[in-house]
Amino acid sequence: MPVRLGELAARFGCELRGDPDTPIERVATLQEAGAGAIAFLANSRYRRHLPGTHAAAVVLDASTVDDCPTNALIAANPYATYARIAQVLYAEAARPSGRHSSAVIEADAAVDPTAWIGPNAYVGAGAKIGARVQVGPGSVVFDHVVIGADTRLVAHVTLCTGVRLGERCLMHPGVVIGADGFGHAPDQGGYVKIPQVGSVLVGDDVEIGANSTIDRAAIGDTVVERGVKIDNQVQVGHNCHIGEHTVISGCVGISGSVTVGKRCMIGGMVGIVGHLQITDDVYLTGKTMVTHSITKPGLYSGQLPFDEARRFRRNSARFQQLDELARRVRALEKGAVSTDVDRHDGNDK
Amino acid sequence: MPVRLGELAARFGCELRGDPDTPIERVATLQEAGAGAIAFLANSRYRRHLPGTHAAAVVLDASTVDDCPTNALIAANPYATYARIAQVLYAEAARPSGRHSSAVIEADAAVDPTAWIGPNAYVGAGAKIGARVQVGPGSVVFDHVVIGADTRLVAHVTLCTGVRLGERCLMHPGVVIGADGFGHAPDQGGYVKIPQVGSVLVGDDVEIGANSTIDRAAIGDTVVERGVKIDNQVQVGHNCHIGEHTVISGCVGISGSVTVGKRCMIGGMVGIVGHLQITDDVYLTGKTMVTHSITKPGLYSGQLPFDEARRFRRNSARFQQLDELARRVRALEKGAVSTDVDRHDGNDK
Amino acid sequence: MPVRLGELAARFGCELRGDPDTPIERVATLQEAGAGAIAFLANSRYRRHLPGTHAAAVVLDASTVDDCPTNALIAANPYATYARIAQVLYAEAARPSGRHSSAVIEADAAVDPTAWIGPNAYVGAGAKIGARVQVGPGSVVFDHVVIGADTRLVAHVTLCTGVRLGERCLMHPGVVIGADGFGHAPDQGGYVKIPQVGSVLVGDDVEIGANSTIDRAAIGDTVVERGVKIDNQVQVGHNCHIGEHTVISGCVGISGSVTVGKRCMIGGMVGIVGHLQITDDVYLTGKTMVTHSITKPGLYSGQLPFDEARRFRRNSARFQQLDELARRVRALEKGAVSTDVDRHDGNDK
Repeated sequence: MPVRLGELAARFGCELRGDPDTPIERVATLQEAGAGAIAFLANSRYRRHLPGTHAAAVVLDASTVDDCPTNALIAANPYATYARIAQVLYAEAARPSGRHSSAVIEADAAVDPTAWIGPNAYVGAGAKIGARVQVGPGSVVFDHVVIGADTRLVAHVTLCTGVRLGERCLMHPGVVIGADGFGHAPDQGGYVKIPQVGSVLVGDDVEIGANSTIDRAAIGDTVVERGVKIDNQVQVGHNCHIGEHTVISGCVGISGSVTVGKRCMIGGMVGIVGHLQITDDVYLTGKTMVTHSITKPGLYSGQLPFDEARRFRRNSARFQQLDELARRVRALEKGAVSTDVDRHDGNDK
Repeated sequence: MPVRLGELAARFGCELRGDPDTPIERVATLQEAGAGAIAFLANSRYRRHLPGTHAAAVVLDASTVDDCPTNALIAANPYATYARIAQVLYAEAARPSGRHSSAVIEADAAVDPTAWIGPNAYVGAGAKIGARVQVGPGSVVFDHVVIGADTRLVAHVTLCTGVRLGERCLMHPGVVIGADGFGHAPDQGGYVKIPQVGSVLVGDDVEIGANSTIDRAAIGDTVVERGVKIDNQVQVGHNCHIGEHTVISGCVGISGSVTVGKRCMIGGMVGIVGHLQITDDVYLTGKTMVTHSITKPGLYSGQLPFDEARRFRRNSARFQQLDELARRVRALEKGAVSTDVDRHDGNDK
Repeated sequence: MPVRLGELAARFGCELRGDPDTPIERVATLQEAGAGAIAFLANSRYRRHLPGTHAAAVVLDASTVDDCPTNALIAANPYATYARIAQVLYAEAARPSGRHSSAVIEADAAVDPTAWIGPNAYVGAGAKIGARVQVGPGSVVFDHVVIGADTRLVAHVTLCTGVRLGERCLMHPGVVIGADGFGHAPDQGGYVKIPQVGSVLVGDDVEIGANSTIDRAAIGDTVVERGVKIDNQVQVGHNCHIGEHTVISGCVGISGSVTVGKRCMIGGMVGIVGHLQITDDVYLTGKTMVTHSITKPGLYSGQLPFDEARRFRRNSARFQQLDELARRVRALEKGAVSTDVDRHDGNDK
């Protein structure tokens, strides 16, 4: 049902320029919005779309409001304010509760009566399922798992034995938490499996994306602190500790026993070698490979820029001679031209 | 049951050299084929296996037919012709239809009577399941999903609310379509979730590999156009638009709001930064990181060649001094040897 | 129940220094161990924790025993001995057998009476499930799959038609074995699907991590030999052959038709291009991209070290001029300063 613009302004502390009785019922982009739609402007690359928008209203900040051709909500943080408004407009229908007849729940599991156990889900012995928890279709919750209030497993989520999730977490389809860490001791040409006898502890307000995996600890806990946001297809190894409000983009791989600080931002496809410490407030650009600990907050990179393939190949070939090239420069600086110039001729044609 | 070689030749428009009555009942490689088996030659690296083959017949092109020691089907495109013959020889047994007794189907889902809803599958309210669709074991089809005729979800596929798939699509196990995009607005040291109120639209004849994920749009649709082929463990972010007949290899990660053109070929483990535009007919070699838009068709690369580790490390160390090295060369060109040569000495021992 | 230290020493052939009657009931790290706990020291980086440990006993080798402040078990391979002790201390409770009432098992599947088919699992026609096999909750075992004795599918595992697993394998949640390989023949601007008519053969004692995928062969078998250990989110393409006792870390991608030798160690996020041969005893550091076959055992690398972003960007910009830089050095060596020095000036400010 529509909400009055004035009500949104009051609720989220925005200055309103325009008609408070404008009905708002959905969100849209600046380009596509029409009657009933609220848009937002938070990224300057989209500012060019503001003057021509047909939105019923726009959430923006004081610096852009004068270009706004329609009703405006002025917010200090337009993106966060937009997010809150969208949460109001798209409030979930009342979530179901109860146990679907096809769900399998072991006799001594403690399931809050306000929780929902969906079709074909499984809840193991000794599990504790909190208030208003949603265990979506096909999810598997093994023995002694604890799930805090208001947490939602969308579908096909697997929580292995003893895993504990906080409150208000959101686990997308295919998430696996608490599978064995990767531990094998070399012995006589083969391997002996190291039993992974620890577990995983996930704090409140954590979101984990589709098909991501968080391994159980060899001993103790793998820890994901409160407020951490993890995108799809991320792998977190055993005994890692991810600090609060850290954001991990898609396809990241974190080896075992890595500590990541608070408020870090890890770009897509970053890899982190095992047993490292990353301090707070570290930003890693996409595809960086972290091979030693980072003790200083800041922005780090490690992936070459791409190029037209032929040019890239030519430069790559030179990379493979780089040490030699540096020695030749050194020789030139010393006044001695390398005596084996001919040898370097191959690529200079 | 075997098919006569002459019938295959007629059906697929090939010139036949040899005995049209040869029975063909299976495919095999040139090296392993024997009586009843048809092989193909489409890649010159395998040409050496042609003269010694024991295949009953070989699909090849006019340029290699003279080396063929057995019956030959001459095709303009031997690989595609082989594919079509294999489709005939390995035609699926009649697919089942109906609803398995263990499947859970909400009352107002519209399931075509020729469709099959497999064991322990779930179909939500308002879903529309087309003719001859296969919803494999353990799949979860949420509310209001639409699946076009002849599409198959092999097993454990998750289609989130409102996702629409075209006809003749093939979704492998573990595929997740329509999970929330990764959107969080920073606010007061934490994050506010941006509701992902859009959906995903997948065209006809799209194949998506095991454990790949395609996120729903924040607003509007994430779009995968017809004919797109996606390998395993690929991640496509919210609001992406993938053009028709583009091929995406395994383990690729595409951030949000990326547009990929038609007929592109994206190599394994490529990463694409958010909000970029890739034009039609772009080829990216494996592991390339795309950091800006590509406006010109062509082949692009970005990953260094590997090397013996010690040599690689030596060259990498020089990479970290590359800017300095370039300045030193510049100084030499100007006739002035750097005054701090000694400083550079460390790696020259 | 606790085990006497003397019993562990005898069972695993260790020299015991201390009290054989010490009861041991769990494992812990050197730092956290207390009464009843056994720790181990196998990595010199943790040696500093030995003198202060409160463990009831420590597994270590002769070189460190003199620093041990508590009971010691001296082992030639402390890590493997620790692993075996942990297996004793954490022996699984007797595994269940039988068929859960919610499991769906086709009439002609051959399920050993000692096997367990868990809640909401599916077993297809003609499947053969060996002694003491565990088919965990929600797993899907398609027609004609063969599973050797004592193998465990933890949960949500998918084994596609005809896949064969050896004995004592461990498949973590979300594993997909036998999905179609990625084969499409270009034809008239689109693609024709190559039927993937082969299968997958997995040897004994193979462990495969959560959400990893092993594709079925186009023709013949994709093979994973005995003793192979694969971490999470690994992709192995069709027709690969992975040699025995090879270890593959998380997020690795191996394209189709790759042969990997025995006893290789493949670091996280490594990519291997299709149709290559990797010989035995090859080690690849993390994120390396393998673009040609490796015929010599040894250690190989290919990923640049990361750096503070501004410095990395500066060096990367130089990388894109590297071929030109090499030519300029060559010109200097020949005594001729490049005549277009000014052209190179841009980055030298």
